[in-house]
Amino acid sequence: MAKEIILANAPTGFPVTEMGRADSTFELRQVDLPELKNNQLLLKTIFISNDPAQRGWIQKDQNSDRTYLPPILPGQRMRAASVAKVLKSTSSSFKEGAIVQCSGGWVEQLVIDAKDAFPLPDLPGVGPSVFLGAVGIPGLTAYFGLKDVCKLEEGQVIIISGAAGATGNVAVQLAKHVFKASKVIAIAGSDEKCEWLKKIGADHALNYKAPSFSDALVEAVKPSYADCYFDNVGGSVLNACLTVIKRNGRIAACGAISAYNDPSQTVLTNWSEVILNRLTVQGFIVIDYYHRRSEAVEVISSAIKEGKLTVAGGETIVRCSDFAEIPQVWIRLFRGENTGKLVTQVADF
Amino acid sequence: MAKEIILANAPTGFPVTEMGRADSTFELRQVDLPELKNNQLLLKTIFISNDPAQRGWIQKDQNSDRTYLPPILPGQRMRAASVAKVLKSTSSSFKEGAIVQCSGGWVEQLVIDAKDAFPLPDLPGVGPSVFLGAVGIPGLTAYFGLKDVCKLEEGQVIIISGAAGATGNVAVQLAKHVFKASKVIAIAGSDEKCEWLKKIGADHALNYKAPSFSDALVEAVKPSYADCYFDNVGGSVLNACLTVIKRNGRIAACGAISAYNDPSQTVLTNWSEVILNRLTVQGFIVIDYYHRRSEAVEVISSAIKEGKLTVAGGETIVRCSDFAEIPQVWIRLFRGENTGKLVTQVADF
Repeated sequence: MAKEIILANAPTGFPVTEMGRADSTFELRQVDLPELKNNQLLLKTIFISNDPAQRGWIQKDQNSDRTYLPPILPGQRMRAASVAKVLKSTSSSFKEGAIVQCSGGWVEQLVIDAKDAFPLPDLPGVGPSVFLGAVGIPGLTAYFGLKDVCKLEEGQVIIISGAAGATGNVAVQLAKHVFKASKVIAIAGSDEKCEWLKKIGADHALNYKAPSFSDALVEAVKPSYADCYFDNVGGSVLNACLTVIKRNGRIAACGAISAYNDPSQTVLTNWSEVILNRLTVQGFIVIDYYHRRSEAVEVISSAIKEGKLTVAGGETIVRCSDFAEIPQVWIRLFRGENTGKLVTQVADF
Repeated sequence: MAKEIILANAPTGFPVTEMGRADSTFELRQVDLPELKNNQLLLKTIFISNDPAQRGWIQKDQNSDRTYLPPILPGQRMRAASVAKVLKSTSSSFKEGAIVQCSGGWVEQLVIDAKDAFPLPDLPGVGPSVFLGAVGIPGLTAYFGLKDVCKLEEGQVIIISGAAGATGNVAVQLAKHVFKASKVIAIAGSDEKCEWLKKIGADHALNYKAPSFSDALVEAVKPSYADCYFDNVGGSVLNACLTVIKRNGRIAACGAISAYNDPSQTVLTNWSEVILNRLTVQGFIVIDYYHRRSEAVEVISSAIKEGKLTVAGGETIVRCSDFAEIPQVWIRLFRGENTGKLVTQVADF
């Protein structure tokens, strides 16, 4: 038997993370674990990844034609990337005690095919949770967003929003120290986050909640405009940035967390800037770049080894004593409470 | 002496086209005409072009860094493309009586350098006003928007909004009969306009004011999605179209007339489609393509000669008996009252 958390009611607005109510988004239940067949693993979940994209996966009444992964339906386990320990193995590829990465979801223990588990590369000095963050999907997203979508070149000016988030902080560091941007303007939601961003590579770090934000943004890009904008948040921050991107500039539309729980927040009064200044907005999803995963992992791992990318401070690990607390940790993403990658720890090694 | 209309009060919302009020957007005045120097022309304005872009040129408190033409300031003549007759010439390139195209503005008569006037190419069977429409800037906009921004290819599905407008109707005809799209979905603001669009090449013509518009759009793209969207209107129509463009599809951001007088109309609740379906939105301004003007004129002229592009019905010419009526005609653009190119005639030949 293992505990798991399933989707109970698909939300349209802000999820109800308290469990046991009629309108709760999630529900805890016990599941039986099957016997292992050949080439399977019994895993114990240790770290669970929290990602803004998960909000999209559970949205009510989705058209599965228009999503990049199948929607999670009521009754199904919540999907999540995770780091887990092998308790039993019928595969020659994994020994008992090995630590692996997989898409395990919100479950205590699970049985998966060995082909769906990935060994963690050897990276001295960092814990395994980093494979859910800087060296995981958020890091890959940062790398391909900068390289292929922003097409960031040495000496250019870039704006990065959601900069203190899992993807954003890696993007800030890579932009400054690996891509050698002349100026990195980071946008985040608290002065504390901004202070941290300045330490890791941001030339300017702006709190979008400050009344002076728009003016500060105009000042930060001077004497010119930004070559590109890595957008993790959409909404009013995107709207402000439209006015400070140079002619023929680029926007990488990576995320829109400001509107995931309320799409009506996307009021783009400056839309005509797209036309007048011939901006290109390009949406992207990191799964389209998985075939080049090793390229990104190589660049990010090297940056960590060379001290160009720090994971210290880039991770918030929350240890849950009760499995049922998982949704409460996850929802912090949408309250902007995390700095760096938000990871839930549900067990010890 | 000649009458001209100047900007009196730069608007932020809907222009006040009635003149003589304290808050009037425009003002009529008399100006002296200078003596002709060498290589100059005295012109009589006959046709004046009405273009949605003019609304942008007069917006209050513009940052001239971010505009593609200098803003028109209070006290300055309203800028407009025009077709005019040469009354006097000190240039060997133009004889008295010649008909030319220029950027004359809202003025009865004017003196310009001969280099700023363009002779009208010979195109049998069409009147000179067509050089403000299908063979003018709107036609060029349609051509380059389809070819370079939408990158429309034979057999593809395209959606075109503002389809009954000056640019839109040419885009519909070129898309179907020259670029050989398999399906052209035209969007306009009345059933009458839609009927006309079906006659000139639209496979589907949808009235965005109909309550069933979104459903009709979903039906029209079936069994698949649209390869690209030529957006002349922005706002709620753009928002609806975001849901029916195929993965990796393209949007040409050409205009946003729905929001020119009220940018808060740009509520894009479907913005996440840009991300999830990896859409590319590219803004463009036709002046960037002027060096390839002859290419577009050749394609459009040939299409007219071969009967693939009709200008009949694609033009609304309003004859003003009083010069002061010009703003009243112009404002019809923003009420959606014109079908095809809206031209103001202020004099006979």
